[in-house]
Amino acid sequence: MTVITLTTDFGLADPYVAEMKAVILAIDPAITIVDISHLVEKFNVQMGAFILAEAVPYFQKGSIHIAVIDPDVGTRRRAIAVQTERAFFIGPDNGVFDLASGCSGRLKSMREITNREFMLPKVSRTFNGRDVFAPAAAYLATGRPISGLGPEISEAKRLQFPKVREEDHVLIGQVIHVDGFGNVVTNFPAKVLRMKEWTSVNVTVKDRDLNMPVQKTYANVRKSQTLAIIGSHGFLEIAVNRGNASAALGIMKGDEIRLSLKKKQHN
Amino acid sequence: MTVITLTTDFGLADPYVAEMKAVILAIDPAITIVDISHLVEKFNVQMGAFILAEAVPYFQKGSIHIAVIDPDVGTRRRAIAVQTERAFFIGPDNGVFDLASGCSGRLKSMREITNREFMLPKVSRTFNGRDVFAPAAAYLATGRPISGLGPEISEAKRLQFPKVREEDHVLIGQVIHVDGFGNVVTNFPAKVLRMKEWTSVNVTVKDRDLNMPVQKTYANVRKSQTLAIIGSHGFLEIAVNRGNASAALGIMKGDEIRLSLKKKQHN
Amino acid sequence: MTVITLTTDFGLADPYVAEMKAVILAIDPAITIVDISHLVEKFNVQMGAFILAEAVPYFQKGSIHIAVIDPDVGTRRRAIAVQTERAFFIGPDNGVFDLASGCSGRLKSMREITNREFMLPKVSRTFNGRDVFAPAAAYLATGRPISGLGPEISEAKRLQFPKVREEDHVLIGQVIHVDGFGNVVTNFPAKVLRMKEWTSVNVTVKDRDLNMPVQKTYANVRKSQTLAIIGSHGFLEIAVNRGNASAALGIMKGDEIRLSLKKKQHN
Repeated sequence: MTVITLTTDFGLADPYVAEMKAVILAIDPAITIVDISHLVEKFNVQMGAFILAEAVPYFQKGSIHIAVIDPDVGTRRRAIAVQTERAFFIGPDNGVFDLASGCSGRLKSMREITNREFMLPKVSRTFNGRDVFAPAAAYLATGRPISGLGPEISEAKRLQFPKVREEDHVLIGQVIHVDGFGNVVTNFPAKVLRMKEWTSVNVTVKDRDLNMPVQKTYANVRKSQTLAIIGSHGFLEIAVNRGNASAALGIMKGDEIRLSLKKKQHN
Repeated sequence: MTVITLTTDFGLADPYVAEMKAVILAIDPAITIVDISHLVEKFNVQMGAFILAEAVPYFQKGSIHIAVIDPDVGTRRRAIAVQTERAFFIGPDNGVFDLASGCSGRLKSMREITNREFMLPKVSRTFNGRDVFAPAAAYLATGRPISGLGPEISEAKRLQFPKVREEDHVLIGQVIHVDGFGNVVTNFPAKVLRMKEWTSVNVTVKDRDLNMPVQKTYANVRKSQTLAIIGSHGFLEIAVNRGNASAALGIMKGDEIRLSLKKKQHN
Repeated sequence: MTVITLTTDFGLADPYVAEMKAVILAIDPAITIVDISHLVEKFNVQMGAFILAEAVPYFQKGSIHIAVIDPDVGTRRRAIAVQTERAFFIGPDNGVFDLASGCSGRLKSMREITNREFMLPKVSRTFNGRDVFAPAAAYLATGRPISGLGPEISEAKRLQFPKVREEDHVLIGQVIHVDGFGNVVTNFPAKVLRMKEWTSVNVTVKDRDLNMPVQKTYANVRKSQTLAIIGSHGFLEIAVNRGNASAALGIMKGDEIRLSLKKKQHN
């Protein structure tokens, strides 16, 4: 009972996702397919990488993750398959797995997918998800070795994910994602912040200073109040209890966030 | 082959639904998961309750329904599991199952979910759907007893669903849902109306009187004509044949509806 | 492990799709259900037909395809089941299968679905997808013969799909679909064009002449440049590399497209 997951920017109206599922199930109808998201912003590799990395840790060992955010389909960019201790990743060589594979245990193998035996007979130039990635994933799901897909490669493209930097005791990061609740996800990881020591943070966005309490749950503040919280993915979020922080505060993806921490006062 | 269903307000772009599925399938990959809706309006417990109640009667006996419309996640609101003769329900104790469990046979057990053995090792304060409800549902799906989840409780929170009242031979109800076709669903149940006796209804919305025929099928009236019909869920709907009644008539969720019935004329 | 696919205009917020799945899984929980699309434009039989026809060739032999774009539900329009060499099709008799069944091998049987034994006990006038089509599909999925569903019929309604015509060496077609990427799909099939012989096409839309290169891949042109390409479905597409052709060029579904072909220059 192997699980194959799908993360794409295909949207939900078109038949493209179903075509990938058809190809997989035609190879082995016992495979379980789980949609992670098909509403990744078109061509936004970084957003796809972030969503994939959030979901991957919860899947069982041996799961196979296909990601198709693939603006360079049809060019000479490689199709690759990556095996780690915990999972497999299949898709274009553009960094879309980088975050997810990095938290899936030791790297075991990295292959370019070149073996036409495990592609559809006719490979279109516009849809590798269906013609190359789906059959390769189904091939792996049937328990066959990654070595059959093509030659080992030494390096894959890395994702250019923004890093947090520090200047004069201020941490500078940015908004990497706004989720469907309007929660503003930043690139400050929990371990950097050691939030337990702090009761409030001062956030500067677009020259506005926002002071907000650090909470463990949205509902610890009153309705419509702003708070800082470590989200389930382990990054600092700016949220509004029962509200939409992105809309209320005018904060969007890509905005720079400056963070000054205020220490808990000990009695 | 147990079925677990999911009803949430998570939307379809974020990885949250997939994380719940990952947790379930990691416990038992043979479980079949069916999405009921993830586009419940954010924090709208009543809408979630209505959508869940519409779908539940069609699922096989023994199905397990998770509902996560959960504005109070992280507070002291309880996580509960309910067993009826026909089904199981899992989610926050906020009334979201009330309608659905009420039409699923005799109540057999009601438990607070407290046993940490059947939660993820790390329970976040923001996402009980993944950390508490999903593993509890998978636990039940493997055939183990509801008693293992936690102590019996005597009462769960009831849903405050608007009731129909009568004043001077006029029935007063309201719009509880507008579906994707723009069909306006009211809280007048078929049994109250005994529609067979009537040929037309007079509906008053926002001081406008609308007279419309009572029909058994949308297509019994001409294109763009308004009609009253008992929908597949058993409530009175106001619809426009091949059109969007909500947009055409300016009727929205929450609007008060006054109904005067006009008797069939017997020859 | 039979596959049943679903193509509807139900949208994703309402519980209607889940109700169909519930009915199918209650009959046989081992059936695999794949969503093709539920975002077909409401009542747009042609769009449903196009999306279905694109996906069907990729499904394994013996798959069962339900399509519910059904503006005449509740009238005397027939419910039908069609068996071809490669697949089964179930839905209203309004042409929605026409394209898909036409490319699924020789026609073997065409039946009106009349046997109430394989419908839900209570058939509503508004939702044949759940009450008639879903149980009929599950019946076929369990391996029983199509003859059990009802009497053989000699003809089904044909889809009025626009045909390409030629006038003074100009091919005249139209936009039949705009996908989620804004790619403009026309009704010019690859075989008519024999594109290999051409390097560019002159497209006239709304009296504007657009000259664009014919390419085998989106990424062969610069970012934001327009191109003509044969899409994965075999029809001519007008696309913008990493952009939205429909928005950029102001081309919408239904627009007439005139095509003058310019021959490759041989050295």
